[in-house]
Amino acid sequence: MDSLSIVILAAGKGKRMYSSMPKVLHPIAGEPMLARVIRTARSLNPSRLVVVYGHGGEQVRGRIQDADIVWAEQAEQLGTGHALKMALPHLPASGKTLVLYGDVPLTLSATLRQLVEAAGDGMAVLTDVLADASGYGRMVRGVDGKLKAIVEHKDCTAEQLAIREINTGMMALPNAQLAGWLNALKNGNAQGEYYLTDVLELAVKDGVAVESASVAASWEAAGVNNKLQLAELERILQQNQAHALLEAGVTLADPARIDIRGTLRHGMDVAIDVNCVFEGLVELGDNVEIGANCVLKNVSIAAGSKIAPFSHLEDAVVGADCRIGPYARLRPGAELADHVHIGNFVEVKKSTVGEGSKVNHLSYIGDAEIGSKVNVGAGSVTCNYDGVNKFKTVIGDNVFVGSGTLMVAPVTLEDGATIAAGSVINKTAPAGQLTVARARQMTVPGWQRPQKKS
Amino acid sequence: MDSLSIVILAAGKGKRMYSSMPKVLHPIAGEPMLARVIRTARSLNPSRLVVVYGHGGEQVRGRIQDADIVWAEQAEQLGTGHALKMALPHLPASGKTLVLYGDVPLTLSATLRQLVEAAGDGMAVLTDVLADASGYGRMVRGVDGKLKAIVEHKDCTAEQLAIREINTGMMALPNAQLAGWLNALKNGNAQGEYYLTDVLELAVKDGVAVESASVAASWEAAGVNNKLQLAELERILQQNQAHALLEAGVTLADPARIDIRGTLRHGMDVAIDVNCVFEGLVELGDNVEIGANCVLKNVSIAAGSKIAPFSHLEDAVVGADCRIGPYARLRPGAELADHVHIGNFVEVKKSTVGEGSKVNHLSYIGDAEIGSKVNVGAGSVTCNYDGVNKFKTVIGDNVFVGSGTLMVAPVTLEDGATIAAGSVINKTAPAGQLTVARARQMTVPGWQRPQKKS
Amino acid sequence: MDSLSIVILAAGKGKRMYSSMPKVLHPIAGEPMLARVIRTARSLNPSRLVVVYGHGGEQVRGRIQDADIVWAEQAEQLGTGHALKMALPHLPASGKTLVLYGDVPLTLSATLRQLVEAAGDGMAVLTDVLADASGYGRMVRGVDGKLKAIVEHKDCTAEQLAIREINTGMMALPNAQLAGWLNALKNGNAQGEYYLTDVLELAVKDGVAVESASVAASWEAAGVNNKLQLAELERILQQNQAHALLEAGVTLADPARIDIRGTLRHGMDVAIDVNCVFEGLVELGDNVEIGANCVLKNVSIAAGSKIAPFSHLEDAVVGADCRIGPYARLRPGAELADHVHIGNFVEVKKSTVGEGSKVNHLSYIGDAEIGSKVNVGAGSVTCNYDGVNKFKTVIGDNVFVGSGTLMVAPVTLEDGATIAAGSVINKTAPAGQLTVARARQMTVPGWQRPQKKS
Repeated sequence: MDSLSIVILAAGKGKRMYSSMPKVLHPIAGEPMLARVIRTARSLNPSRLVVVYGHGGEQVRGRIQDADIVWAEQAEQLGTGHALKMALPHLPASGKTLVLYGDVPLTLSATLRQLVEAAGDGMAVLTDVLADASGYGRMVRGVDGKLKAIVEHKDCTAEQLAIREINTGMMALPNAQLAGWLNALKNGNAQGEYYLTDVLELAVKDGVAVESASVAASWEAAGVNNKLQLAELERILQQNQAHALLEAGVTLADPARIDIRGTLRHGMDVAIDVNCVFEGLVELGDNVEIGANCVLKNVSIAAGSKIAPFSHLEDAVVGADCRIGPYARLRPGAELADHVHIGNFVEVKKSTVGEGSKVNHLSYIGDAEIGSKVNVGAGSVTCNYDGVNKFKTVIGDNVFVGSGTLMVAPVTLEDGATIAAGSVINKTAPAGQLTVARARQMTVPGWQRPQKKS
Repeated sequence: MDSLSIVILAAGKGKRMYSSMPKVLHPIAGEPMLARVIRTARSLNPSRLVVVYGHGGEQVRGRIQDADIVWAEQAEQLGTGHALKMALPHLPASGKTLVLYGDVPLTLSATLRQLVEAAGDGMAVLTDVLADASGYGRMVRGVDGKLKAIVEHKDCTAEQLAIREINTGMMALPNAQLAGWLNALKNGNAQGEYYLTDVLELAVKDGVAVESASVAASWEAAGVNNKLQLAELERILQQNQAHALLEAGVTLADPARIDIRGTLRHGMDVAIDVNCVFEGLVELGDNVEIGANCVLKNVSIAAGSKIAPFSHLEDAVVGADCRIGPYARLRPGAELADHVHIGNFVEVKKSTVGEGSKVNHLSYIGDAEIGSKVNVGAGSVTCNYDGVNKFKTVIGDNVFVGSGTLMVAPVTLEDGATIAAGSVINKTAPAGQLTVARARQMTVPGWQRPQKKS
Repeated sequence: MDSLSIVILAAGKGKRMYSSMPKVLHPIAGEPMLARVIRTARSLNPSRLVVVYGHGGEQVRGRIQDADIVWAEQAEQLGTGHALKMALPHLPASGKTLVLYGDVPLTLSATLRQLVEAAGDGMAVLTDVLADASGYGRMVRGVDGKLKAIVEHKDCTAEQLAIREINTGMMALPNAQLAGWLNALKNGNAQGEYYLTDVLELAVKDGVAVESASVAASWEAAGVNNKLQLAELERILQQNQAHALLEAGVTLADPARIDIRGTLRHGMDVAIDVNCVFEGLVELGDNVEIGANCVLKNVSIAAGSKIAPFSHLEDAVVGADCRIGPYARLRPGAELADHVHIGNFVEVKKSTVGEGSKVNHLSYIGDAEIGSKVNVGAGSVTCNYDGVNKFKTVIGDNVFVGSGTLMVAPVTLEDGATIAAGSVINKTAPAGQLTVARARQMTVPGWQRPQKKS
């Protein structure tokens, strides 16, 4: 492909988003719309990538930190033609320029590739064919089928109103002519704006071939002007992702009730129950099952592990054949070896848990190293924080931690140690022995139950 | 507007609801259908509001306790004309009467206003135009376009069957003629009922002008006869509410997966993840984020606070910039100041928590006053109940409560107190000092692990 | 009905399922598709039920263990005609044979009954009429309306392409002719397969009457070749089930957000909030309410009980007027009497809880017998496991267990015993008395708070 520049117009405020955040930063599938458009643009391997920013420029540049992006400011919003003009100084004299929009997030890479190819040495417009084209700029073609003009709905003749092929705004343009065309644009319209669409007629005048390419689906060209449209595109994207997973053999209990905000990698025979949310990079090995209502973010789960409903895993690693949840919370730095069981109402943070170990009920494990074949009883807590500093708890292999044990870190429970239920352990519990720290049971003679206060 | 009376017909049993509760009390968006219709009626500022009740009258009157409602009993169900006749004694001699239905819950106030205005000094019928009008009463108009009659589907001529404008049942009627018309109704039909629709022909006979107004959407006129229809209208109402939120700038991860049963007020840049349920009055400040699968009822959350997934908040107040959840439960009377953290598997009931304080893991806080900058360790419990009475726990500012601490109320932990992990505190813990209540750790010599029983 | 045999073709591999499990074992509504087809088949009371298996035969036979099923192996996959031929040795010489498919799971019993009746002494094909029949085999009828042939889409004349009646593949055939027809099938087609559809022309040739019956909805004939189709049928089935519940009077907050994988029995005035999952046999008494996001498996819940959101109940029995959750987990063997309260972050396993008893917060109850009117305080644990064996905790009536109590099983708390908060109980707590096992509170003189480590 000839030298390709891509310009992304991203200067709009998005007034109808009713937000203090610039429109192009609003997330779709967990990612700013602009970042998604940039990712799509990159898939075409452009030699240059220019983003035209305007409203909320600091926020936009703060959020999108790709070092190679060329930023062009559009200080005043005077239309798409004006916006592209702001990028002119950064474009090479030859080659092509593809124009994208920061608020049109779902265009497919393959479609844009076709558009750029269609342009050849001339220009090409990405079009769509709608059942009802009302409100859209129509693609007017001559009797030879060649594109002649884009006419806005309100300027259409009765005949033109019948045209169902519409302009998506995306186009590929020849750099050689681009400056001339942009400088020739007029703003003699109601809005006083310079419209990029008008370059088509200039191209025709100049005898430059104008071709077109088509979107595969209308959502490829759908823009976002308010939260309703954002929600609609979010649903379309989520549905597309769900269908891709299904086609790859993942079992989804309900494709309308899964949210993937990032990347979901999977092995064979993976099953995901209803209403799960995946964020960041999630990797699921063969035969992994995710129960209903789980939230997983940046998690790797090895083959055969089952995550029961209502579990919340973040920045964690789960080995093979583990049993997690229900109501398990793995926080950042939780690393579980194979065959580990983490049960209900258990929180694990910044801790390693060795093979075959179990923490099945109502416990908090933080800043701990737990060996293999350890059993931590219900209601146990690693007391890792003294109010200012955090300390480690080290538990060897084959340790039995009785229920309700408090481990006051820094502390070590050596291999094979047994801790009696209800103990507060603040010194080393020696290997292979029973350690106790609790009071003796006694019955108080003559005690009477309290009475209801009147 | 001329003196307006509104009569709501609410006497039906709703046999196909298969319920022991009268049909009009079945909730839509958390509110009895009848209560919703009454709210809509009130928005028209009627001078009089009559509810015609019948089946389950005691339940209906017990549930709807508005003092100003005039109740008219329809002891036998002899048709809509008969039902309205029961209201006659309560209607003034002049002015207009708007007839609504207790099982048609989604009519818009603006539509009813148009209907009343359309009536002028005569009558007006609310109509709808359907693609397929099968089964509905058709609005028959003369060549002059004036309404002549409402003809039931089974009585239609071939020509009338082609009419797509149908009767919704709602109408505005002139009180001056109303008694005469209702008394003139005949019940010579298969069901032996008096149909209100027949007044239209009486009006035409009397030379009274009959106008019409139209619903904006068919669901405005949809009635509920069974749970399927109720569920359908519930979904429409929820979708309408979700769209209103989106249009006001709220970010919804999935508009099809939010339930609002009451009122949701919000600031700017509020984001709500999938599958949340809101009940009663919920107020969300600017930049509040609600994670997936939360249930919130009568809660106020100030700006910048984030509620993590699986949280359940009820009758609680959350300050600004708090971090709540996941799996946090705030019960009635929980009042959190700014910058408070309530973490996983933590329950807070009837307690105040001061600025910057944290209860991050597996704790129960009930009947407590907690100062600012307090840290409550994992697995701590306020023992607020002695089996018959409840007592308060008072925790000063800057207190460090070690993990697994039990606070036996009534008890005070003074400012700056430190409680060693695993302590049972049943007396005042003095300010600025370390208080401990636990046994010493010892290792039992010669102890052997238990063996598997055979 | 004449002697009826049913043959279920279930030999396909389901390559596009991308699974190591044979296609017909993939679950729909929690049950292998083949098991569902077998259930439907049984509802016709066949005298013989033959399953033709092939790929993954061991898995299929291992999973479907019904003793009366006759298994016929199809070692090579040479088409549906060949598959049915494998069943021939197991079919009686007379009577009829109904052919079903292991990957067509949603056919209704009533429809199949009609098909079998339509066959009379001849054969009958189950057909559907589609708006767009592209890709399907067309039912070609003579001018007399009689079926003449099934023509594959690619072999259709222009006239035949206009036919919208299509072949579903299901048919009822006369055993007397079946062997002859199957042996007469040719495989002179691109795939080199023997097609069962070709028997229709053989029947016509033989002068056997060929009738048809129709599906009530297209999903009755829909087959599963990939996970997308499986998910689509899952949704249809779930929607059908939800509508059936609504029609029976159950209140569903959202019919699109309920999953029933098994049987849900219910009384009157049952209400189910959004996003609940039911597995196995679940029985809900009158006035039972299930809150949002609950997961219930093999549970019986008696009248008037309310299950709050986020609860997870499995193999449990709940009495009348109980209050369960939110975040309650009942594990196998939990049996609650009437008026029991199980609160948040409480796990109950293999335990009985007597009438009116309460375990409201953050507790683990395992292998326990709890009497009536018992109160178990927050953070209590039955220490039922010593690392190798499990032991019982017995709690009498009217016992008050203070918060943070650890009950080291085997242990008994006698009737009316009171346990002080924070006690570790490992011996009998005598009836009616206060038992304590905790250390005395002391304040450490001169202690300094730890400093931040640099």
